[in-house]
Amino acid sequence: MADTKTKLVSPLAPVDGFPELPVIDGVRFSSCAAGIKYPGRHDVMVAEVCTGSALAGVFTKSTTRAASVLDCQAKLGGPADAGAAILVNSGNSNAFTGHLGQTSVRELTKACSDRLGIPTDRVFTASTGVIGEPLPHQRIVEKLDTLGSTLSPGGISLAAQAIRTTDTFAKGSGATVDVDGQQVRIAGIAKGSGMIAPDMATMLVYIFTDAAFDQSALQSLLSNLNTSTFNCITVDSDTSTSDSLMVCATGASGVNATGNPAFAQALNDVMLDLAHQVVRDGEGATKFVEISITGATSDGDAKIHGMSVANSPLVKTAIAGEDPNWGRVVMAIGKSGAAADRDTLSIWFGETLVAENGWVSPSYSEADAAAHMKGQTVSIRVDLGLGDGSCTVWTCDLTHGYIDINADYRS
Amino acid sequence: MADTKTKLVSPLAPVDGFPELPVIDGVRFSSCAAGIKYPGRHDVMVAEVCTGSALAGVFTKSTTRAASVLDCQAKLGGPADAGAAILVNSGNSNAFTGHLGQTSVRELTKACSDRLGIPTDRVFTASTGVIGEPLPHQRIVEKLDTLGSTLSPGGISLAAQAIRTTDTFAKGSGATVDVDGQQVRIAGIAKGSGMIAPDMATMLVYIFTDAAFDQSALQSLLSNLNTSTFNCITVDSDTSTSDSLMVCATGASGVNATGNPAFAQALNDVMLDLAHQVVRDGEGATKFVEISITGATSDGDAKIHGMSVANSPLVKTAIAGEDPNWGRVVMAIGKSGAAADRDTLSIWFGETLVAENGWVSPSYSEADAAAHMKGQTVSIRVDLGLGDGSCTVWTCDLTHGYIDINADYRS
Repeated sequence: MADTKTKLVSPLAPVDGFPELPVIDGVRFSSCAAGIKYPGRHDVMVAEVCTGSALAGVFTKSTTRAASVLDCQAKLGGPADAGAAILVNSGNSNAFTGHLGQTSVRELTKACSDRLGIPTDRVFTASTGVIGEPLPHQRIVEKLDTLGSTLSPGGISLAAQAIRTTDTFAKGSGATVDVDGQQVRIAGIAKGSGMIAPDMATMLVYIFTDAAFDQSALQSLLSNLNTSTFNCITVDSDTSTSDSLMVCATGASGVNATGNPAFAQALNDVMLDLAHQVVRDGEGATKFVEISITGATSDGDAKIHGMSVANSPLVKTAIAGEDPNWGRVVMAIGKSGAAADRDTLSIWFGETLVAENGWVSPSYSEADAAAHMKGQTVSIRVDLGLGDGSCTVWTCDLTHGYIDINADYRS
Repeated sequence: MADTKTKLVSPLAPVDGFPELPVIDGVRFSSCAAGIKYPGRHDVMVAEVCTGSALAGVFTKSTTRAASVLDCQAKLGGPADAGAAILVNSGNSNAFTGHLGQTSVRELTKACSDRLGIPTDRVFTASTGVIGEPLPHQRIVEKLDTLGSTLSPGGISLAAQAIRTTDTFAKGSGATVDVDGQQVRIAGIAKGSGMIAPDMATMLVYIFTDAAFDQSALQSLLSNLNTSTFNCITVDSDTSTSDSLMVCATGASGVNATGNPAFAQALNDVMLDLAHQVVRDGEGATKFVEISITGATSDGDAKIHGMSVANSPLVKTAIAGEDPNWGRVVMAIGKSGAAADRDTLSIWFGETLVAENGWVSPSYSEADAAAHMKGQTVSIRVDLGLGDGSCTVWTCDLTHGYIDINADYRS
């Protein structure tokens, strides 16, 4: 276990480190150390977005969601004629903190509004970390002068560092897209490592673009893309009380990307890249796992099957043990509650056809499947042989590292 | 980890070992070593039930359930004028073995029928163990002479031994009940340790009584009691392809217990005891955990909340780490999908009120809660403050032992 105790960076982290992100005209970032929990580490970030920006967001469906999430949901859809600010801290989620939680949100919002000259109903806060402990918001309030005076268009990578909790690496993704012959840029950051089974969005994700966008069209596009990106990942089946995903389109490029397919594709790619990075930083993860379901009665059924396989502790421990234990995949399909017929199932591990017609394939080579399991990326495909429904979901393995991290996270 | 690798018996096993079970008139047992998987260990059992017995059963809802399960379901409700036999092997589940699976069931049924003189439609088979490998049924067929010639009313404890797979102890429970001034007896055995999240029954459970019973009333009673016993336990949220629970009422006592409340209560107690023993043998378990939900909008909602807490990897690892991390309980309630209001939730760890009115209780003592977590039995109670719905479910913690057992179970 020593290797997981001392793990500094997930073995599945992107080999090139944090990417070079395009600068988004109309957005400035700053971050600093407010001493919320982690000594000597940046733990607060601000993103200031210019007047006229369109904002869209999706949030956790948890019934015990945090005060800041409720506040953000109430504010979305407001007028674009003022600027906006996003203020995020790590180390404390300000969730399940009663009336103190609402007080913290109000105080932070007011202080940020005062310092940046942005109306309170355009200040969006988020907090991530331990649940149930009051947020020492005064420490953040005292830093708002510093945060306000150090805003810069290039501060996004430090902002990505500041929102981490148990994350072992900062997560970013960007794109430059041609929209009707003109370039627009997208840059996004994310945090997330455990408590990952988004029901609406995952953990904290902020994406910025200098494209112009119709507000309601941006919300529709975001909700739509979210279905096949963040809502298709799981680390441990546990859903956070703070999950938030926001997109800000500043329009500073002067290029309107509303309805543009290339932009939608690029935004999808950025979201999927960030979602994959969250899985790659799954607590204790040693394998990145892609589960593709085809031939289901519907896309919804395919997703139920995919998540049943992805959340099965027995499948996830088999992957950790590099065991091509397809019997457990059969079990997970069988228990999912979605339509399946034992005798029309086919299962592949990587390129190896493992099972078909209700039993092991005559061509199955355990050596081939076992070789595939040794890799850092494991692909499992299940064809149900029933219809045209399909879905792909992503997860990681379940290892001793997960137990180490979570049996003593608080203490 | 050495302690879990070399673990011979679960630390949560009943301290007195296998109980002294009452002998059930009308049932005889035998068992032997057929060499299915475990060398030198009994791995097959037969229970022969006398003419006139009422039989009831509940089975897994898995869509990939084993051939023997499908066969048993088709046979239940048959005439009571013949005897019946139950033939069970461990080491191989004969699940997802295609047409070979049906062949094995047919061959075993025929051989058992021939040897014991019981019609094939009254022979019930079950298999438990690895999924997807053909069952070497001929090895069992060759042992049927031995099994038939060693049947004895006192063989139930050896039968309980024979049906184990990863179980670290054999599971039995019994009762003697006064029905209208006359005594009847109940004796039951179970196996189960991992892949435990019953949707209809758990793993393999066989219960016998010498009471007489109306066949359809027995089925109703069993299904009813199952809801609050085996369907309220979970080890790892994974549902077996073989789950089967059968009750045989031989009537040999001459006492009809149909509709008798004392008998129903005693049967409930035996079922609950066996269900708890399955949890106590949960793979890698070091804590027995009872989760009581009250104040829910309905009993159904209470069960959804209870199972959400019981299956949360973050709650289960916190329990393993003896951390009274009630924030994770809040998270699990919030994600469950059932109705909850953050501000009316109350949470107790043992006798300690942890949270109320949407935040930590003013009277909360972390030291008291931490002391409770050190015990072998952990009680978590959540009152939702919404209605009269309630449910209690049982689970165990998630430890390194679970990873050890399941990352190399096959190899």
